[in-house]
Amino acid sequence: MKVKVGIINVTGYIGMEVARLLYGHPKVQLASITGRSLVGQKLGEVLPHLADIDLTIEKELGDVSLVFSALPHKESAEAIVQALDRGIKVIDISADFRLKDARDYKKWYEFVHPAPQLLDEAVYGLVELNRPKIARSRLVANPGCYPTSAILALAPAIKEGLIEPDIVIDSKSGVSGAGRTLSLKVHFAEANENVSAYALEGHRHLPEIVQELSRLNAKLKPAVTFVPHLVPMSRGILSTCYAKLAKANVDVVKRYRDFYRGEPFVRVVDTPPQTKQTLGTNLCLIYPTVDSRTGRLIVVSCIDNLVKGGAGQAVQNMNLMLGFAETTALEGLAVYP
Amino acid sequence: MKVKVGIINVTGYIGMEVARLLYGHPKVQLASITGRSLVGQKLGEVLPHLADIDLTIEKELGDVSLVFSALPHKESAEAIVQALDRGIKVIDISADFRLKDARDYKKWYEFVHPAPQLLDEAVYGLVELNRPKIARSRLVANPGCYPTSAILALAPAIKEGLIEPDIVIDSKSGVSGAGRTLSLKVHFAEANENVSAYALEGHRHLPEIVQELSRLNAKLKPAVTFVPHLVPMSRGILSTCYAKLAKANVDVVKRYRDFYRGEPFVRVVDTPPQTKQTLGTNLCLIYPTVDSRTGRLIVVSCIDNLVKGGAGQAVQNMNLMLGFAETTALEGLAVYP
Amino acid sequence: MKVKVGIINVTGYIGMEVARLLYGHPKVQLASITGRSLVGQKLGEVLPHLADIDLTIEKELGDVSLVFSALPHKESAEAIVQALDRGIKVIDISADFRLKDARDYKKWYEFVHPAPQLLDEAVYGLVELNRPKIARSRLVANPGCYPTSAILALAPAIKEGLIEPDIVIDSKSGVSGAGRTLSLKVHFAEANENVSAYALEGHRHLPEIVQELSRLNAKLKPAVTFVPHLVPMSRGILSTCYAKLAKANVDVVKRYRDFYRGEPFVRVVDTPPQTKQTLGTNLCLIYPTVDSRTGRLIVVSCIDNLVKGGAGQAVQNMNLMLGFAETTALEGLAVYP
Amino acid sequence: MKVKVGIINVTGYIGMEVARLLYGHPKVQLASITGRSLVGQKLGEVLPHLADIDLTIEKELGDVSLVFSALPHKESAEAIVQALDRGIKVIDISADFRLKDARDYKKWYEFVHPAPQLLDEAVYGLVELNRPKIARSRLVANPGCYPTSAILALAPAIKEGLIEPDIVIDSKSGVSGAGRTLSLKVHFAEANENVSAYALEGHRHLPEIVQELSRLNAKLKPAVTFVPHLVPMSRGILSTCYAKLAKANVDVVKRYRDFYRGEPFVRVVDTPPQTKQTLGTNLCLIYPTVDSRTGRLIVVSCIDNLVKGGAGQAVQNMNLMLGFAETTALEGLAVYP
Repeated sequence: MKVKVGIINVTGYIGMEVARLLYGHPKVQLASITGRSLVGQKLGEVLPHLADIDLTIEKELGDVSLVFSALPHKESAEAIVQALDRGIKVIDISADFRLKDARDYKKWYEFVHPAPQLLDEAVYGLVELNRPKIARSRLVANPGCYPTSAILALAPAIKEGLIEPDIVIDSKSGVSGAGRTLSLKVHFAEANENVSAYALEGHRHLPEIVQELSRLNAKLKPAVTFVPHLVPMSRGILSTCYAKLAKANVDVVKRYRDFYRGEPFVRVVDTPPQTKQTLGTNLCLIYPTVDSRTGRLIVVSCIDNLVKGGAGQAVQNMNLMLGFAETTALEGLAVYP
Repeated sequence: MKVKVGIINVTGYIGMEVARLLYGHPKVQLASITGRSLVGQKLGEVLPHLADIDLTIEKELGDVSLVFSALPHKESAEAIVQALDRGIKVIDISADFRLKDARDYKKWYEFVHPAPQLLDEAVYGLVELNRPKIARSRLVANPGCYPTSAILALAPAIKEGLIEPDIVIDSKSGVSGAGRTLSLKVHFAEANENVSAYALEGHRHLPEIVQELSRLNAKLKPAVTFVPHLVPMSRGILSTCYAKLAKANVDVVKRYRDFYRGEPFVRVVDTPPQTKQTLGTNLCLIYPTVDSRTGRLIVVSCIDNLVKGGAGQAVQNMNLMLGFAETTALEGLAVYP
Repeated sequence: MKVKVGIINVTGYIGMEVARLLYGHPKVQLASITGRSLVGQKLGEVLPHLADIDLTIEKELGDVSLVFSALPHKESAEAIVQALDRGIKVIDISADFRLKDARDYKKWYEFVHPAPQLLDEAVYGLVELNRPKIARSRLVANPGCYPTSAILALAPAIKEGLIEPDIVIDSKSGVSGAGRTLSLKVHFAEANENVSAYALEGHRHLPEIVQELSRLNAKLKPAVTFVPHLVPMSRGILSTCYAKLAKANVDVVKRYRDFYRGEPFVRVVDTPPQTKQTLGTNLCLIYPTVDSRTGRLIVVSCIDNLVKGGAGQAVQNMNLMLGFAETTALEGLAVYP
Repeated sequence: MKVKVGIINVTGYIGMEVARLLYGHPKVQLASITGRSLVGQKLGEVLPHLADIDLTIEKELGDVSLVFSALPHKESAEAIVQALDRGIKVIDISADFRLKDARDYKKWYEFVHPAPQLLDEAVYGLVELNRPKIARSRLVANPGCYPTSAILALAPAIKEGLIEPDIVIDSKSGVSGAGRTLSLKVHFAEANENVSAYALEGHRHLPEIVQELSRLNAKLKPAVTFVPHLVPMSRGILSTCYAKLAKANVDVVKRYRDFYRGEPFVRVVDTPPQTKQTLGTNLCLIYPTVDSRTGRLIVVSCIDNLVKGGAGQAVQNMNLMLGFAETTALEGLAVYP
């Protein structure tokens, strides 16, 4: 008997990627999918690449044990409150339960959080840092794509006090990170053959990054500058992180290897990684190195923004929450080239 | 006990894609890989996305029951003769056993075939047309990428005598089809933001297409013009095929659906397909339609050139030859977007 | 004293490209630009790459001698009637004056033409075929991008009776051809790494192609199948045209060279052309060749869809209409790679 | 009477781009071009987009007043010594005369400089910083692409002492920056849909950046970390530069505007720039902003790596050296989209 799960708002890029991954899951059955404007249509009509999944888009979530919410922020929180009331475990792909301070939602997302009482209970779903809590939780906040790449890149250095608090995170993302909502910025002829920096006044993922890095080391007050960039490709995030080393003569690579020893999805690699090496997978490739001229640690990390930066991480969280092997349905190798 | 298989010349795009697909196969173990210049290196050092496959590139093929040869033409035939002598079943990814007339190798590939006695025995590995023969064969010639897309698009129309013999096949291929060998034509800055037609004097896949189409209908002498084009993407082939209808009032779509009924990897679709809908999968999407103004049949087909057009088709052939369910290790959905 | 010209609806891809080209014109001054939703803004605020053009987007066209209308169809015709009434020469970039039969607008564009009395007067602005008429005209219908590539590819063969009437035109276009209006089809992550055929039931450029080819040879009733494809690049169209030769032993290349002798923007080339070789230029590169196996003529043509397929051709028309050297402001070489 | 100039090694990306730009120059005649392996061929045969330039590739440089050397390093220095001996002014596009300390060539480029006596005389050809010297020079070292983007981004801040010496430069480059020499790294299917960091151990452009930044402010000893990244596009560099502000309450934007007031090719812009806005032009767009949370200056700069980062800057230098208006032949607007 497979466990029944659902996806709220399956038609965005993360939602459809969760569906793709679940299709290969031996212990879980995708039993209910909802959408906003396409209710009543077959999934395969709307998304032909998912035609093998014989489901119709519904208005209301059916009878499931766990649900992924891929709604936009605010709407997601509202739907999640209802799901929890029905006893359904929830993985929230929106940002609605990532931040611990309700005021941050007013400040960064411009809405009054409808369920602040749940913020404390929600577990930040970065498995490598919060595995036991996630396994016990009924509400997991799936991390943002940029935060996943940045926090995994910096966690060993921060936790072990290897770096000074002044941190620069320069991230390069494929265009799918901007979602499926139409805008001129991601219109093909505008985004193609083009690189740009954006959100220089402060991206919404910044408070999430700062919050989680701060929790890793109470003594360090990280001063983070985070600049995201759009690059002309569909998938992938590469984050390059910079900070001064706090101590000399530390074997940084060894520290990173020790920190991530045994992790199925995080690899500390010997040569600079490429986003393409993670395409379609739940991997995070991390390359720490020291610029000896300046005493600066540089860490490069690569993920597929829709997998480890979204749907794959959500399935990884689901596996933990339902007691399955963490890697189930996430074993595939990268589609390269 | 898994069946041991090998890959000769694993480092090309088709070779590495066979390795990726076999990694997920429950009944087969990739036990031996060879390369030409990289002997002694770990597979993961050469191809980081395959790091989970713990194998070293060898000079000689080890003890296996079946082997995929991904060598260039001529070299492949030589290696295959040796493998067959050792009692190993062979799937040849090169063109060396696709053509039935040895003189065609002189004409189209400019070499004297070293094993013409095997040409008759070799089975053309397009499963949808030759399933029973493939299952019994010890030597399968895996079809070329363009021929796969073109023959599947035209087979129902030709077999059932729906079209006149004058046929135009206009194919658009992603750049990986040109392989991993360096050349200015596929240098990024040259191939990017560019479309070109090539091999207008006659592409090597033409005799293969004509041979197989001719076998489908002895009465039809197809006069095929085939023009391949290079488009700026990594994977995918879309072929647009044109021919005058031989009869009026035929329900072409129904004929196509009937022809491919039950096929796991060929889909006759209702809306024009996109190559992206097949990315990473073994699917061939086919859209037949009639231009009523001119009485012309138009058939559009889409494949991933490295999967159904190469490695996936090879694994499909292997499944048949080893008696496994044909779809094993080929069930994954497209990586979209 | 420069001649003052204007652009109606400057903010689309063709409109902005006309502005770019006029900026380098020594005898013309872009004096007035209009837009629909951005009235009052500086051009450089809306389109930073045009910041050197110090103009504000206006609601109404100012005092000019000639205007380019880059409005959508129907709206364009309405604006043009007013401009002609003011004594302004007009180059219409929309389709509104390309077709001679008013009923075709109902059939193909779904509107009743507001000025059918002007259809006969309007000159189809393909300079290479209609040079003298254009020079005398006050209303030029700038050809569509696909028709430009297809008609120039086929004109010599049709005019000289070299081919049979059964013609296939398979065109591959960069995504800017779909314009700047947002749609999922041209959303970056959907269009990238993807090729698709569209408008298989009949594209709006088909009647335009048929009309103009028919005028070249009254005896030939061309039966044209035209299939456009979207390829993942910003600019460029490559059309591959197929037709049976009507006569044997014709030196096709010589006929093509003779036909286009002296043309500044059409080149009959010796090797298969690439769209990239025309990037940013008004060139049309044409490669005619015979498939001797089937007796079929194949003609490949390449243009930049926004220049020779739009803005450049419009400026070429303007030069003729205003009595300037035809190549003025169109001399730049391709931006390659 | 036009001034005759030449290009040594015209077949690389910068060489061919110099030829393109010179074609539109009213006062200069490209009179001699040399190549290494293609001697005797017409330029248009080798590079069809330059077919309008009626020149044959020669072995030896002809009679010219000024030459651009686009040879690889070391070879360039050797050719330049000969040209200077013939009384020819030289603009070196290689790195051979950029560094002032001959030992740096041993360290960073692994060769013993053949003409160290000229290093002091050579002028670093970043016009915005060295205009008068360039005008008087017979030997100008054209800056590297990354240094151009980085130095222009940081010059005002460093010269005016606005920042601390700890500087991070994170650059993203299109693939043409790697040149036309074949390598797997820039093979289409490998570079496409991929982002990677490289040269983390120290890129050859680092000493050039440090040298020039140091000359701007003798008191500041910049500790520069420079990480270049490859992004899947043909042209463009975006550099994001980070440094702590040395003083509070500085109007950074005003300082930048003042610094670059009157510069024809450097624009301090109000919104984050995009590389595409510079495509084909000699512009450098600069966006300085302060991250008030961390007191850090962020400067984003965009150039076309082959124009302002190469050929355009070379022509700008030539204009100065020959006494022409600096912007001659560089007035074209960006080819957008």
